[in-house]
Amino acid sequence: MGDLRPSRAEQRRNTEARILEQARRLFAESGYDRTTIRAVATAANVDPGLVMHYFGSKERLFAQAAGSPAPPLTAGTAEEVAEQLLERLYGSLADQPVESLAVLRSMLTHPEAAREVHTSSRMHKEALSRAIAEAAEASEDADAGGADAGEDADLRADVVSAVLIGVAVGRHLIRLDHLAAADPERVVELMRPVIRSLTRADDEDRAASED
Amino acid sequence: MGDLRPSRAEQRRNTEARILEQARRLFAESGYDRTTIRAVATAANVDPGLVMHYFGSKERLFAQAAGSPAPPLTAGTAEEVAEQLLERLYGSLADQPVESLAVLRSMLTHPEAAREVHTSSRMHKEALSRAIAEAAEASEDADAGGADAGEDADLRADVVSAVLIGVAVGRHLIRLDHLAAADPERVVELMRPVIRSLTRADDEDRAASED
Repeated sequence: MGDLRPSRAEQRRNTEARILEQARRLFAESGYDRTTIRAVATAANVDPGLVMHYFGSKERLFAQAAGSPAPPLTAGTAEEVAEQLLERLYGSLADQPVESLAVLRSMLTHPEAAREVHTSSRMHKEALSRAIAEAAEASEDADAGGADAGEDADLRADVVSAVLIGVAVGRHLIRLDHLAAADPERVVELMRPVIRSLTRADDEDRAASED
Repeated sequence: MGDLRPSRAEQRRNTEARILEQARRLFAESGYDRTTIRAVATAANVDPGLVMHYFGSKERLFAQAAGSPAPPLTAGTAEEVAEQLLERLYGSLADQPVESLAVLRSMLTHPEAAREVHTSSRMHKEALSRAIAEAAEASEDADAGGADAGEDADLRADVVSAVLIGVAVGRHLIRLDHLAAADPERVVELMRPVIRSLTRADDEDRAASED
């Protein structure tokens, strides 16, 4: 039956957490290319073979390290989804997320790493896409278009991700003057109609006001 | 009075253009770090001292090479500015802009290079910011807020740049599945209300429909 006492599973979770913490730090400090499995193993005080056993490859280790610590969006109306997204935007503007930015930078320069990140963040995207599709179904708007609704929601979810990444990159990486200096509240206020439009939360308003 | 015969000035423009073309190619192929003034000079068949004389530093050479070949936006109503931005978005989605993407990648990984790019693209940003400010003045919307209108327009111009960069990065660099596969027309359609909201073109509609 194998040895699966809770203490053992717990021990593995702790070791994985320690490896991920060191991986995140090293990818941030040294960039994707210069971070090796061996260096991560040494920093986490484990054998390199164990890192490979747990994570399979450097790309996948990166994806796990880069993966948002935020839980996937909870289902809800388009309105609720839009507000959850804006809350996260606020967080990404207010904090100076040094490590996650360095990881984002690696993602932008190493497409193979970026692809693994998508796979690992699929749950997150699926929740977003589903919420948008549900809002479209609830909406009375004709151009939501029956059969295309799911496809449309997938594209909208990607565009939402892209504009949110753009705002974080513009503020923290490229440091556009006024965006870098702005009060996060003000940026969220400007982005509210943007996110509401992309998640179809504005259609919902319209549908509600027509009742 | 110095030797400023037209043929001389023209010769300089041609040499500068040749240097910039080679710089763009080398930054794209080799990345920011590995591209040297010397290598650019050799490729353009000029003396490295001349490159320094014309451009001053590697950062400034990069900024010139990265600078959008697109002319600054022409002034107009918010509506017209929004449509010009959407046309450019269409272009950045439809083309596979290999060189400009590689340059964007360098910009994201080298903040000092990015800063010079801002300086050189200031004209572009000022035109955008001015157009947004003018639209706000024309609008009847109370929250355009007199004294803050200019500051607001500067921030809106940065947020517009950020979301457009985000969409290009999401499609070409991170390659989000559905965004990468989407018909450019469809993406422009989704982004139209986004850009109209950020440039206050939607306020203009409202003001016009209230007449």
